[in-house]
Amino acid sequence: MQNTVKIASPYDLSVIKELNLMDRNELEKAIQTAQHLFENQSLWIPAYKRMEILEKAASLMSDRVEELIHLALSEGGKPYQDSKAEVLRAIKGVKLAAEHISQIKGEQIPMALMESAQNRLAFTTKEPIGIVAAISAFNHPLNLAVHQIATAFAAGCPVIFKPALTTPMSGIALAEIFKDAGAPEGWIQVVLCERDLAEALVTDSRIHFFSFIGSAKVGWYLHSKLSPGTRSALEHGGAAPVIVEQDADFGEMIPDLVKGGFYHAGQVCVSVQRVYVHEGIIENFIKKFVTEANQLTVGDPADAATDVGPLILPKEVDRVAEWVNEAIVEGAQLLTGGKRISETLYQPTVLLNPSEKSKVSTNEIFGPVVCIYTYTDRDEAINRANALDVHFQAAVFTKNIDIAMDTVKKLNATAVMVNDHTAFRVDWMPFGGRDTSGIGMGGISYTINEMMREKMTVIKSKYL
Amino acid sequence: MQNTVKIASPYDLSVIKELNLMDRNELEKAIQTAQHLFENQSLWIPAYKRMEILEKAASLMSDRVEELIHLALSEGGKPYQDSKAEVLRAIKGVKLAAEHISQIKGEQIPMALMESAQNRLAFTTKEPIGIVAAISAFNHPLNLAVHQIATAFAAGCPVIFKPALTTPMSGIALAEIFKDAGAPEGWIQVVLCERDLAEALVTDSRIHFFSFIGSAKVGWYLHSKLSPGTRSALEHGGAAPVIVEQDADFGEMIPDLVKGGFYHAGQVCVSVQRVYVHEGIIENFIKKFVTEANQLTVGDPADAATDVGPLILPKEVDRVAEWVNEAIVEGAQLLTGGKRISETLYQPTVLLNPSEKSKVSTNEIFGPVVCIYTYTDRDEAINRANALDVHFQAAVFTKNIDIAMDTVKKLNATAVMVNDHTAFRVDWMPFGGRDTSGIGMGGISYTINEMMREKMTVIKSKYL
Amino acid sequence: MQNTVKIASPYDLSVIKELNLMDRNELEKAIQTAQHLFENQSLWIPAYKRMEILEKAASLMSDRVEELIHLALSEGGKPYQDSKAEVLRAIKGVKLAAEHISQIKGEQIPMALMESAQNRLAFTTKEPIGIVAAISAFNHPLNLAVHQIATAFAAGCPVIFKPALTTPMSGIALAEIFKDAGAPEGWIQVVLCERDLAEALVTDSRIHFFSFIGSAKVGWYLHSKLSPGTRSALEHGGAAPVIVEQDADFGEMIPDLVKGGFYHAGQVCVSVQRVYVHEGIIENFIKKFVTEANQLTVGDPADAATDVGPLILPKEVDRVAEWVNEAIVEGAQLLTGGKRISETLYQPTVLLNPSEKSKVSTNEIFGPVVCIYTYTDRDEAINRANALDVHFQAAVFTKNIDIAMDTVKKLNATAVMVNDHTAFRVDWMPFGGRDTSGIGMGGISYTINEMMREKMTVIKSKYL
Amino acid sequence: MQNTVKIASPYDLSVIKELNLMDRNELEKAIQTAQHLFENQSLWIPAYKRMEILEKAASLMSDRVEELIHLALSEGGKPYQDSKAEVLRAIKGVKLAAEHISQIKGEQIPMALMESAQNRLAFTTKEPIGIVAAISAFNHPLNLAVHQIATAFAAGCPVIFKPALTTPMSGIALAEIFKDAGAPEGWIQVVLCERDLAEALVTDSRIHFFSFIGSAKVGWYLHSKLSPGTRSALEHGGAAPVIVEQDADFGEMIPDLVKGGFYHAGQVCVSVQRVYVHEGIIENFIKKFVTEANQLTVGDPADAATDVGPLILPKEVDRVAEWVNEAIVEGAQLLTGGKRISETLYQPTVLLNPSEKSKVSTNEIFGPVVCIYTYTDRDEAINRANALDVHFQAAVFTKNIDIAMDTVKKLNATAVMVNDHTAFRVDWMPFGGRDTSGIGMGGISYTINEMMREKMTVIKSKYL
Repeated sequence: MQNTVKIASPYDLSVIKELNLMDRNELEKAIQTAQHLFENQSLWIPAYKRMEILEKAASLMSDRVEELIHLALSEGGKPYQDSKAEVLRAIKGVKLAAEHISQIKGEQIPMALMESAQNRLAFTTKEPIGIVAAISAFNHPLNLAVHQIATAFAAGCPVIFKPALTTPMSGIALAEIFKDAGAPEGWIQVVLCERDLAEALVTDSRIHFFSFIGSAKVGWYLHSKLSPGTRSALEHGGAAPVIVEQDADFGEMIPDLVKGGFYHAGQVCVSVQRVYVHEGIIENFIKKFVTEANQLTVGDPADAATDVGPLILPKEVDRVAEWVNEAIVEGAQLLTGGKRISETLYQPTVLLNPSEKSKVSTNEIFGPVVCIYTYTDRDEAINRANALDVHFQAAVFTKNIDIAMDTVKKLNATAVMVNDHTAFRVDWMPFGGRDTSGIGMGGISYTINEMMREKMTVIKSKYL
Repeated sequence: MQNTVKIASPYDLSVIKELNLMDRNELEKAIQTAQHLFENQSLWIPAYKRMEILEKAASLMSDRVEELIHLALSEGGKPYQDSKAEVLRAIKGVKLAAEHISQIKGEQIPMALMESAQNRLAFTTKEPIGIVAAISAFNHPLNLAVHQIATAFAAGCPVIFKPALTTPMSGIALAEIFKDAGAPEGWIQVVLCERDLAEALVTDSRIHFFSFIGSAKVGWYLHSKLSPGTRSALEHGGAAPVIVEQDADFGEMIPDLVKGGFYHAGQVCVSVQRVYVHEGIIENFIKKFVTEANQLTVGDPADAATDVGPLILPKEVDRVAEWVNEAIVEGAQLLTGGKRISETLYQPTVLLNPSEKSKVSTNEIFGPVVCIYTYTDRDEAINRANALDVHFQAAVFTKNIDIAMDTVKKLNATAVMVNDHTAFRVDWMPFGGRDTSGIGMGGISYTINEMMREKMTVIKSKYL
Repeated sequence: MQNTVKIASPYDLSVIKELNLMDRNELEKAIQTAQHLFENQSLWIPAYKRMEILEKAASLMSDRVEELIHLALSEGGKPYQDSKAEVLRAIKGVKLAAEHISQIKGEQIPMALMESAQNRLAFTTKEPIGIVAAISAFNHPLNLAVHQIATAFAAGCPVIFKPALTTPMSGIALAEIFKDAGAPEGWIQVVLCERDLAEALVTDSRIHFFSFIGSAKVGWYLHSKLSPGTRSALEHGGAAPVIVEQDADFGEMIPDLVKGGFYHAGQVCVSVQRVYVHEGIIENFIKKFVTEANQLTVGDPADAATDVGPLILPKEVDRVAEWVNEAIVEGAQLLTGGKRISETLYQPTVLLNPSEKSKVSTNEIFGPVVCIYTYTDRDEAINRANALDVHFQAAVFTKNIDIAMDTVKKLNATAVMVNDHTAFRVDWMPFGGRDTSGIGMGGISYTINEMMREKMTVIKSKYL
Repeated sequence: MQNTVKIASPYDLSVIKELNLMDRNELEKAIQTAQHLFENQSLWIPAYKRMEILEKAASLMSDRVEELIHLALSEGGKPYQDSKAEVLRAIKGVKLAAEHISQIKGEQIPMALMESAQNRLAFTTKEPIGIVAAISAFNHPLNLAVHQIATAFAAGCPVIFKPALTTPMSGIALAEIFKDAGAPEGWIQVVLCERDLAEALVTDSRIHFFSFIGSAKVGWYLHSKLSPGTRSALEHGGAAPVIVEQDADFGEMIPDLVKGGFYHAGQVCVSVQRVYVHEGIIENFIKKFVTEANQLTVGDPADAATDVGPLILPKEVDRVAEWVNEAIVEGAQLLTGGKRISETLYQPTVLLNPSEKSKVSTNEIFGPVVCIYTYTDRDEAINRANALDVHFQAAVFTKNIDIAMDTVKKLNATAVMVNDHTAFRVDWMPFGGRDTSGIGMGGISYTINEMMREKMTVIKSKYL
């Protein structure tokens, strides 16, 4: 009897679909299919063909925008407007992958820099790295699939894609779109399986590249289990810090930070989590921030007016509620929110000055909770912002150039936004965590580069 | 009582020096020193100062060439001429590191590629990645130290360098030269320790980057034990294949291949090991190759006329002899060599058509043994060359452009030499194994890049 | 009374269309329109919008392929199959321009390389260079327009485009397509005018960039008349040389060279003109080349079977015929062709060993004439190939790597094809003449780069 | 009888040296020497050798710092401290040229982006562009020579260098140092000649690259006279504008601007000339600026305490004095200075609100005069700053990020300094005027790139 997985709406927990899970034999067959394609250079898809297919896929996606939005929001619970933004970004991502193909190129390596190296011409070219095994997350079911599938396809790598079992339908739809766009059989395989089989997949010695988007705990565990020779890219979360200086412009800052904190109910790896506000403006900041947060509409993601939808699973609300309560016990002041609305809905919540030891201060919340901390000395605030071992995106609000430069320099982060929230991302920018927040660099072109390897040719000739 | 290690001459096994081994407390102190430097941006050495120190170090090395040659050959056993080449390359490597500092730079990330991303200016800058722990190999005691120490210093990373316990003196000398050149205390620390402490070092959660040059077995083991967040570069070995086509020019090929096979008694990770020769020219090839191999002078590395010196330890000769004997039993024909000359000297040895299952065909020999195989069909030869899971450098000899292009394309290797041996390397070219042969990319500038990480700044302004 | 220009079919000289010529007032207005757009940054079109318009334009062109083919061949006389190739390349060119927009970016300039330069952050960004005045040639009426219009539009520059008066309709159609694709008024202006007004346009002090495709004589003359401050790119012709070595593979060489010599009746700036053939194979070469040339179908460009169509004007046939006759008088042997078929059709003609002083040896023929010369020593052949002061694309046919490397190194050319004809071009590669053959570098992305200028920002702060 | 030129001290007009001028025959010989070297590839100096010679030259310069300082200040009149800075920069420049050689490299051009372009491998390499003719300026006699000689030598181009006849000795010394460093005969030739011969040199058809540093009038004239095919780089002057916003930090601004305005008596092409100060702070600004200007020590350049030395020639003081007087007549208020001290010394002079029509507002002053203008609206100030047709470096002083970004974006300049004066330059940054301020891009590596040209190799093979 085949195992199945039921896909449920995070909003009302109704079952949308039931899908078969793969067994070990099917997984083995998937790996063999990928291996066969990769090991026969004659089967590789030429660059112009990969471009055509990617362009066609983007075009097909554009034709099916509404369908993709509803698919994504029904399984993932992200509100309509944000799901729409995700689908448009996903289309752009596929286009970016197509475009990047013309940037795949090697370079000359100069040879006469020492006398003994003369009479040679050397240059590099790029080849696909091999078979990609990708494990994805639930929070952007379509766009993350693009970041793992379209990139591998652009690089010329066969990809075996395992979506989150909560939100597999968008990835499956993407794979079908690629097929409709002309992608030959086997280059993009979607596998639905439990964690043990996923581990078997990614640790298989035939896998050349492991792409993971999800929790640090699982990611680093799998990373330590990889076969010798397998390369990897891990994208985990953070607990994104923001420094708000005394001279910050309140104008757009408050809506930006509220958006950055409660977008997709905070289920984003660069969600605004820890906001350090100078004590000189704390009263004003709190008042405006809470007012803005209270105006958020929480509810059905299918409703175009909804700002904040459900968390992905009821147990995530259990966890978030527990952390918030614990933080309050440990000294935090609840400024707003703090209540469960339904199985999966939780109020946008703002905490003031939780203990630096509380879970909300040390762990990624991945829920609709923003913590505000007061500070007096900027360096001290930066030190607190840097204190965790996760470092991803960060932000500073100030009008002053010197303060901005100083803070950017000192914040330990891959990206520091000046006068913008931490969750800012475009799909062509480098994106990836430092230290335990991940390894490798995301972003369409960056990922394609990681999925390729250079080959150097050195021609020796007395005539050179 | 402090543990010590005795450094012996590989040639005559006489003890050259006895050095103290570090204990766990000292190691902890070393890590704390590095951590202190890295965590205080005000202690970082500005770019111009790093350049000055590197240039000064190169200049001091130039003043001490003969001393460094003798140090390296006395502990490592590489013949004088080759040790001299190593020292000159090491000096060039330090200069390359100095030069590369002016190439450390970020780039603009365009922002208006989607309407929603307008009004922003974004660019990246580069920062040192953090504390580097480096484990080195014995076969190029000075130049490998340069590749791990000068690069880290150029990148602005504190480095803790553990040399091979057989050849630690060159690395120690290099660290002293840096000190003389003005490197501030603590940035370059050399630690001598046994493997358990080395493991404790590299798996410490405070280490940001692990650089390893040595055996695949140890490298991948340590790699799997790294703390979450630690990046790594591994450089292991291979069993470098060469394809010799029927139209190959015998002129320089034979001396090139003999050099590539017996240089440093084959103790090089890209040493010529498996030579596939077209049957149409096999007789001629064998005759000339053996004649050339027989003319090699084996003996005291300090003698300027010596071509082939000792292996690093007697047990390595035991191993090589055993593999050769086993290969003969399994069907190989011994064309020349095959005898032990002393505790650590072994004759340059050539085997014809060993079994594809024999250890000499499947494992890195790391000794003065070259295997020759006949073939009739080029694709079949390439398949045999590609069959192992180690892929590093390879070569093809042919006069024909089409054949060269075809073979380069099909050989699974990071570098394919056309009409040159596989052991060709200059220190500014990308150098690193594929698959189980390693991870990351060596070469001075490439390593510096890996030891840095990008930070993106995104400035949002309505005026942009 | 307004002046007009009659557009005639080069094949049968029938008038296709009559178009108004612009007068001086209209030209002044065109320049003012461009100036107004450029001087008001608020009117600049954001990058995402330029991408959209270019993508849309490519899509509209794809919808109108047959129409564009017929337009181009009716005014330009290039045979159907080749005109079709041109239109497909033109579409790809517009897509390449769209794609390149995401590659427009500056870079960081490191600042701490000297002590006195510390405490600064510097980076560059790119801006459109200003108003582009483009003068185009007749031989690729659509694709050259793409190279001058789509590039300027991608760069964000207002462009004033003057097509050849023989073939203006394709450029006009392209401008209309851009309008339909959403390009705002004024950014792309097509002007039809005689040479005096064209000179007034390009030498106007408000023009920032002058792009010229056409004859060297006119190009360099205009170049010397430019206003101080105007940048320029000139693309002229050559007299492309080919070296055919004794070991060349006859297989594809003969059809490739015949194609490269007689494509568009030789009216291409990189047309195969001077073929130096080793005397050891001259008999065989001549026989096969002439046989292949004789099989070309000369006639109506609208006929899909036609290989060679008319020259652009009857006077060009006069000139070519005169040069051929003169060459014969001066010692050349006529191997085939040499006769006029109609006002504008001329037989594919092959000359053997014309004098090095004959016009066919020293000037760009721009007609269906290929000269073959014998040689015995490669260096001597290369010297003859290099002897003119025009240097554009060149070729060598050989199977031998060393000979290929040697010849590539010694030929004075921007591009050397190994085993391909000189007229090979793709629109993303660098393309442009050396010395008097032109200035600047063509190719979609290269031209966009030339149409932009960098601005460096240096921020000084004690915190940096 | 040979013509000679007398080199006089700008400070006391005493004759330092008398040097022979070259005649037409000697010039012809110089060109032939360069041509011989360039046309024989076998004579080209390999990259490693060029690096060695440049490194050695830098080292020899370091040994002779004081001598070079005194040579430069004796002929050029730049004060000791600034001449010292020039010599140190010149040494760095030679090192940068050496370093850049390892960055000279081509790149792969991808080939399979259209179906018809498959089966090809393409890459570019770089070659020296040819013979460089360089005309230099007097104001940095050593460092400008480095920018024209060391770059050409690094690029592998023979260079014929014509220094300013007022300050030829530093360039001659540099050429001698290169000779001592091992530069082979003929690669670096210094020619002393009058303008007619200089024109004959640069317009000679054998010259491939014309490098000019000097007045726009002469530069653009020569540019229009160049032979077809000659490339060029012109570096002229500007009338550098500065915007001082109301919130600017007075701390370092005043000394920075005074330095930028009076450094080398204003004889610098990016000298601070037009300072637009917000009316809200004008009183304070003027007071502090004048106070600081009045503290400058004017006098003998050999004196280490001197801030401002002589102008290069008495007639330049005539001109500056005339312009200042004229400006006063036309409405400017003289805040300080305005008097001639000696034949060649002129007081540091500050004018308030000269007419926008006055020569000091519209022409490059190239003397110790700074003009201050008040403004109320930033956009209006920027428009005034942009109004001339010379655009080189500019500056803005503000603490505010938005204002800085806005001003940088709107100022028409190649470089905009934020909180620094306009005369900031390091020799590795891009440096060059826009529009009539010049063509091409200076900076050691940028110039080397302009002195090289790319060659593309395209290998066609069915195996690719």
